Amino acid sequence: MRLRLDLSYDGTDFSGWASQPTLRTVQGTLESALETALRVPRVRVVVAGRTDAGVHARGQVAHLDVEPEVLVASAGRSPDPPLAALVRRLNGILPPDVRLRRATEAPDGFDARFSAVWRRYAYRVADSPEVVDPLARRHVLAWPRPLDVDAMNAASADLLGLRDFASFCRAREGATTVRTLKELSWARDDSGVAVGRVVADAFCHNMVRALVGCLLSVGEGRRTVQWPAEVMAGRRRDQGVTVVHAHGLTLEEVGYPAGAELAAQAERARARREAVDD
Amino acid sequence: MRLRLDLSYDGTDFSGWASQPTLRTVQGTLESALETALRVPRVRVVVAGRTDAGVHARGQVAHLDVEPEVLVASAGRSPDPPLAALVRRLNGILPPDVRLRRATEAPDGFDARFSAVWRRYAYRVADSPEVVDPLARRHVLAWPRPLDVDAMNAASADLLGLRDFASFCRAREGATTVRTLKELSWARDDSGVAVGRVVADAFCHNMVRALVGCLLSVGEGRRTVQWPAEVMAGRRRDQGVTVVHAHGLTLEEVGYPAGAELAAQAERARARREAVDD
Repeated sequence: MRLRLDLSYDGTDFSGWASQPTLRTVQGTLESALETALRVPRVRVVVAGRTDAGVHARGQVAHLDVEPEVLVASAGRSPDPPLAALVRRLNGILPPDVRLRRATEAPDGFDARFSAVWRRYAYRVADSPEVVDPLARRHVLAWPRPLDVDAMNAASADLLGLRDFASFCRAREGATTVRTLKELSWARDDSGVAVGRVVADAFCHNMVRALVGCLLSVGEGRRTVQWPAEVMAGRRRDQGVTVVHAHGLTLEEVGYPAGAELAAQAERARARREAVDD
Repeated sequence: MRLRLDLSYDGTDFSGWASQPTLRTVQGTLESALETALRVPRVRVVVAGRTDAGVHARGQVAHLDVEPEVLVASAGRSPDPPLAALVRRLNGILPPDVRLRRATEAPDGFDARFSAVWRRYAYRVADSPEVVDPLARRHVLAWPRPLDVDAMNAASADLLGLRDFASFCRAREGATTVRTLKELSWARDDSGVAVGRVVADAFCHNMVRALVGCLLSVGEGRRTVQWPAEVMAGRRRDQGVTVVHAHGLTLEEVGYPAGAELAAQAERARARREAVDD
């Protein structure tokens, strides 16, 4: 059977999602905890969004395949159903900066990475001393100058749609930089933090942070509202674009189609971008 | 002139507000940063709520007295007005877990401690794996069992008003334990975290955490809705009451009366509780 795992983590002390020898990664930490919880020698999880070092997640999704007998056996004498027992057991093993929110049986055709039809990220910026909250400092960027959110929204609107994001991506041999940016908008939350909402079918490496870096230049008035669209039209990495700090970025949610579309979407995505970042 | 300072801090790595030799405290850290920023040998601040070790603040208020010439001189060649320059300068000196949100000239008669007419605290509890957010783990208590917020509200309503809170306070020689509890209510925020809102004229030591401990027992069904009122009627420290962890507690706001009432309130409060915790 295939399990869907819904995860959150504080990315501060991780070298990103993807396992790397000798480094503390979310994948490595999770897989090792699953091996202990399920009492199996080797677990491999597949994830929707391979976040970079320092990037956080509230709505990360992963899957793993497990024998039903292994799952039942792992619950031991717990009075809870096996999946609830797994959540409890795994959270007891995981360090406090990664939490398993839910474990559910995945529907037929579900693939955490390839069935996903969109990823939603949030980038958070506190742009005045009144708004900087030390309790949120690990996931909100403190910015020393005030931002004009309206200007950032106007510039963002020009970047939407199916486009070549080469200007905002680290180039990779043989990988496309064409993506569909479904939403890019800014609003202040109740505490006054400027929150960028970014939704795309998928993202190339560094894409959100480069887009946000570009828009912060507009927000503080160093660049015109038209500039990000000009950068995009250049279709190659622009020296004027700064990739902003990772710690303001959080993967908030991953979207999947309804049942029957899961497998079809996975097939399409797998064919299209086997060697591409999400 | 008297300055009003509005402060936030992450209490995790502080041994509380009040200065203590050899320990890292918010007061010690702030006063030392002010001495550097103002270039004076000794600064003393007075605070509205002397929070315990591990307790956070978003709306802490303090005051200090400073010679106008000292303030102007400290701004140096900054193009900002002196108070804005102080905010910028002080935040550059302070560690990231304490932030100065605002510095303003205090109105006549203002005393951060004695003019205050109420203090509002929030206690935050995540009572299911779905709700536990690793990004908020420093200021939200993770509780292993689900809470019945309605039962907690019913129990809370019985504790309101002018009462003797001796059952919830660490006794102190010669100090009254009579307080006016103006509000005590529970609601879930957008993410599902149970937030207790606690407002009183002032609090004795450990009072909020003992009240919350009592109410969590009700929320998880270990105690009846009537039990907290029975404990209060006992008017002495009850062995059944657990003082919950400090890290779920945040001082959110301090209330002051309008102008002319500031000095009168300060005089009344000073007379009433010279030797009492806030």
